[in-house]
Amino acid sequence: MNKIVINKEDFKKELIRQLRASDQFGSWSKISDEELLTKKYIKTKEELKKIPIIADIDEIWINEIKMIFKAIALQFERKTGVMCNVVMEMSHEGFGRCIVIADKIVLVDKYFKDAHRFSYRTLDKLYEDGEKLLNKAHTVYLQYKPCKE
Amino acid sequence: MNKIVINKEDFKKELIRQLRASDQFGSWSKISDEELLTKKYIKTKEELKKIPIIADIDEIWINEIKMIFKAIALQFERKTGVMCNVVMEMSHEGFGRCIVIADKIVLVDKYFKDAHRFSYRTLDKLYEDGEKLLNKAHTVYLQYKPCKE
Repeated sequence: MNKIVINKEDFKKELIRQLRASDQFGSWSKISDEELLTKKYIKTKEELKKIPIIADIDEIWINEIKMIFKAIALQFERKTGVMCNVVMEMSHEGFGRCIVIADKIVLVDKYFKDAHRFSYRTLDKLYEDGEKLLNKAHTVYLQYKPCKE
Repeated sequence: MNKIVINKEDFKKELIRQLRASDQFGSWSKISDEELLTKKYIKTKEELKKIPIIADIDEIWINEIKMIFKAIALQFERKTGVMCNVVMEMSHEGFGRCIVIADKIVLVDKYFKDAHRFSYRTLDKLYEDGEKLLNKAHTVYLQYKPCKE
């Protein structure tokens, strides 16, 4: 298997697809993709300061964080044809872990300390992170693949 | 690394250690190990029949199921010196997944459909399952270890 070509646009599309699918009542139908992603995942330093260190985290936000990893998993599947799964454990205090696995190989392993404060500073940072995680996932996969058989 | 020797007794001890540690108020201090394990994990066919197919699952029970996998992880660590982690995702309807990972290798991958009904018929079955999971974990680890470096 050759190195896959990952571009930010694909990750972004996948993430938007996830978000839009969760919009059961069409409340975001008039919001552009960029606005929606910003609304969900972007917080400026000023905004972050206003969020308390200790807080409760709700199911919806847990799910929206998970979407980032589902987008990674889906993109990985599309590019490689290898089935992935996402497992996310999150306490109500915002401690948790999210991993993406392909059979016996852990492609992504992310640890959260205060997930209610989880955010990116700019959209570019979000896309870059998606690209980075996907590239790393593929590197790990290629490393462990020879042991699969 | 050679094949490790796994015996049921070690798994049992590890699981009991977990359960006892969660008994903050000493409510089980007068109950024997076997009685405690039976109370928690054993249900006869008759008892199972009385549990509805659809039900809510509480945090305590989720944690007690997780203890089985923590016991696997801890035993694996003790026997091999390899650090393990348990990640468990469980919905309130009892759908979920529990995995044990050692760095990039998935040692155990267990899927749950109705976790509120999760149980074994006899203590022996519980011990056997522990032994089986540990053996399988080690086989997977040996298979993927060459790719680690």
